[in-house]
Amino acid sequence: MLNFTYDIPTKVHFGDDALDYIGEEARKFTDKILLTYGGGSIKDNGIYEKVLLELEASGVKVYELSGIKPNPRIDSVREGIRIIKEKEIGAIIAVGGGSTIDASKFMAAGAMVDFDPWKFISENKPMSPALPLLTVLTMAATGSEMDCGGVITNLETNEKLSSGHKDTRPKVSFLDPTLTYTVNKYQTACGTVDILSHIFENYFNVDESMYMLDRIMESLMKTVIKYGPIALKEPENYEARANLMWASSWAINGFVSASSKSSWTVHPMEHELSAFYDITHGLGLAILTPRWMEYVLNEKTAHKFYDLGVNVFDIDKNLDKLEVGKIVIKKLNKFFFKDLELDSNLKDIGIDESKFDQMSKKACGKKGKIEGFVELSPADVKEIYSMCL
Amino acid sequence: MLNFTYDIPTKVHFGDDALDYIGEEARKFTDKILLTYGGGSIKDNGIYEKVLLELEASGVKVYELSGIKPNPRIDSVREGIRIIKEKEIGAIIAVGGGSTIDASKFMAAGAMVDFDPWKFISENKPMSPALPLLTVLTMAATGSEMDCGGVITNLETNEKLSSGHKDTRPKVSFLDPTLTYTVNKYQTACGTVDILSHIFENYFNVDESMYMLDRIMESLMKTVIKYGPIALKEPENYEARANLMWASSWAINGFVSASSKSSWTVHPMEHELSAFYDITHGLGLAILTPRWMEYVLNEKTAHKFYDLGVNVFDIDKNLDKLEVGKIVIKKLNKFFFKDLELDSNLKDIGIDESKFDQMSKKACGKKGKIEGFVELSPADVKEIYSMCL
Repeated sequence: MLNFTYDIPTKVHFGDDALDYIGEEARKFTDKILLTYGGGSIKDNGIYEKVLLELEASGVKVYELSGIKPNPRIDSVREGIRIIKEKEIGAIIAVGGGSTIDASKFMAAGAMVDFDPWKFISENKPMSPALPLLTVLTMAATGSEMDCGGVITNLETNEKLSSGHKDTRPKVSFLDPTLTYTVNKYQTACGTVDILSHIFENYFNVDESMYMLDRIMESLMKTVIKYGPIALKEPENYEARANLMWASSWAINGFVSASSKSSWTVHPMEHELSAFYDITHGLGLAILTPRWMEYVLNEKTAHKFYDLGVNVFDIDKNLDKLEVGKIVIKKLNKFFFKDLELDSNLKDIGIDESKFDQMSKKACGKKGKIEGFVELSPADVKEIYSMCL
Repeated sequence: MLNFTYDIPTKVHFGDDALDYIGEEARKFTDKILLTYGGGSIKDNGIYEKVLLELEASGVKVYELSGIKPNPRIDSVREGIRIIKEKEIGAIIAVGGGSTIDASKFMAAGAMVDFDPWKFISENKPMSPALPLLTVLTMAATGSEMDCGGVITNLETNEKLSSGHKDTRPKVSFLDPTLTYTVNKYQTACGTVDILSHIFENYFNVDESMYMLDRIMESLMKTVIKYGPIALKEPENYEARANLMWASSWAINGFVSASSKSSWTVHPMEHELSAFYDITHGLGLAILTPRWMEYVLNEKTAHKFYDLGVNVFDIDKNLDKLEVGKIVIKKLNKFFFKDLELDSNLKDIGIDESKFDQMSKKACGKKGKIEGFVELSPADVKEIYSMCL
């Protein structure tokens, strides 16, 4: 168990009245806001109008940057920074899922410096200070609404990489589960996998974490596994949408991972898939995770699979640990590919082995390895990619 | 499930190096601190020296108020306010358990106004604004290190009552589990009961809470039930002390109770016991809780006892709900009075029925009832007190 500093000051308005607070909260920071969003679906479902109404009523002038894409591009970030500097904007409100929020984090930091924002990645420059960022979440998945980090893609270099700083953690987030009613089946499934994967990445940790936090991670996993399929079947089930939404924030805001070194494994492998093939992040995670588990499950690692199996998947505690681990993988396959109705193989989504060598090396980064729960070399990663075909 | 605002910005340094940060954190707020503490045991175990050393090294001048008693008195609060005003002090560091921290919350608010601090209670005046409060926790129990509220006693009127405001929530808390190694067996047991009781008060709620938060409360309960007895047997078991400490904060900081109306029941009954007889709060809770459960368990309430039994006490899920409830009460009796070695009856600690009428009325307050999970009249409360004899 490691020493840690807990420091998660994000304020959250949660519930179907969350947007009622956006005007007064924004006004605490500035009278000029950059509103960032994606493809414009927020204009169909009334969110855009509501946000504008509330901001105007509070005397906040709104500038806009729309068109932020999934797997957001550094180009959008540059454009946002340009507007912020030109209009002397004081804060950002990101309306969307992880992509819009992540891109906005890079804008928030980039607005305060004179260099190109890709240097936050390429030269590891600190994302501090940053403009205040507020978020309106429209999809439960990345947890970006309550964490420090963001992922950004550079299409010129085929790189999808992450950075972050406590200064880019949202100051206030507005979480209204009804705003996710229109998220379609596929995106709901992918979001569910993303949340679950964040918990896995923290749960399968290098150091022993605190008992209390392991149990809380199991609570979050149970929640996601229960409500993911319900939200798929009943998109307007408030209870399901609310539980998924709040679980998405707590899976990754830093609370559950505080006491242990969690060195992520499946995410870096997936980031190469979406960087090279622009697939949905959650789908990539679903295909990779059970194969990764198969690859690393052994006598030495089985204890963690055993806890997961007994405490989350309700598997008989009297079974052998390795046996429980195998059942966990079976149940997870069923969950991803039957309950959540996702494609189970890379081939089915048009990906072959042609770039596995290149992707494996990139996934292992400058260190030449993934230092996760079990350390992986590029050859290991390639083998896992191959298992996904 | 209710709408809610989540707003818990307390920063926590957790671990055996937590006090290393106290100088730099304090200096962010002020260069003149009031250090509040209790009976002086912090001078025996080195905490006092360490805190002073760190504060002085950071250029913070320290004034002191010692002698804050368990079930803290309004007199100590008045004295603290006098010193703060006289010396123009900018922040408070409370070193101790809930009593010292609670009293310091009243000082923090009282220092900003001209009226007597008992009016925060008697006239329900808001405890805002308040001086910044930092805390060094020396006992895991009340959760005051991360919540807004405080309990204060007026011996002249035999009243033990609570108030609080988001402005009195500690800004920074230093949680070093090793500082609780010297907490004796009895106080460790009472602290354990207090933590568990906070979770019960939130778990047995009026509205249905969020599934995720119910499961998290169960995780916290499992943690407390596992580690309470270990800390009793092995006072220097870091894992046990750390889990109890972090659970104490999360039991009551507002996170788990956010989505439901939790109207507390056993605490108001216990507050009359400690107000009239000055007994340890946790002991009173241990004696009252299983009797309260017996009193309110019925066909209508059994579902909550069933969840508790199956998910926390590992009771067979195929049993009848009422049956599970009865086993929960048996197991809780064993936990409090055998594992934690606490006295099980009021008679054993010298309390008889002579003041039950008066206490029952007071416990029901101005409303004439306790609006908890099950509503209780003064007659109900008296009956529960009688079951404790």
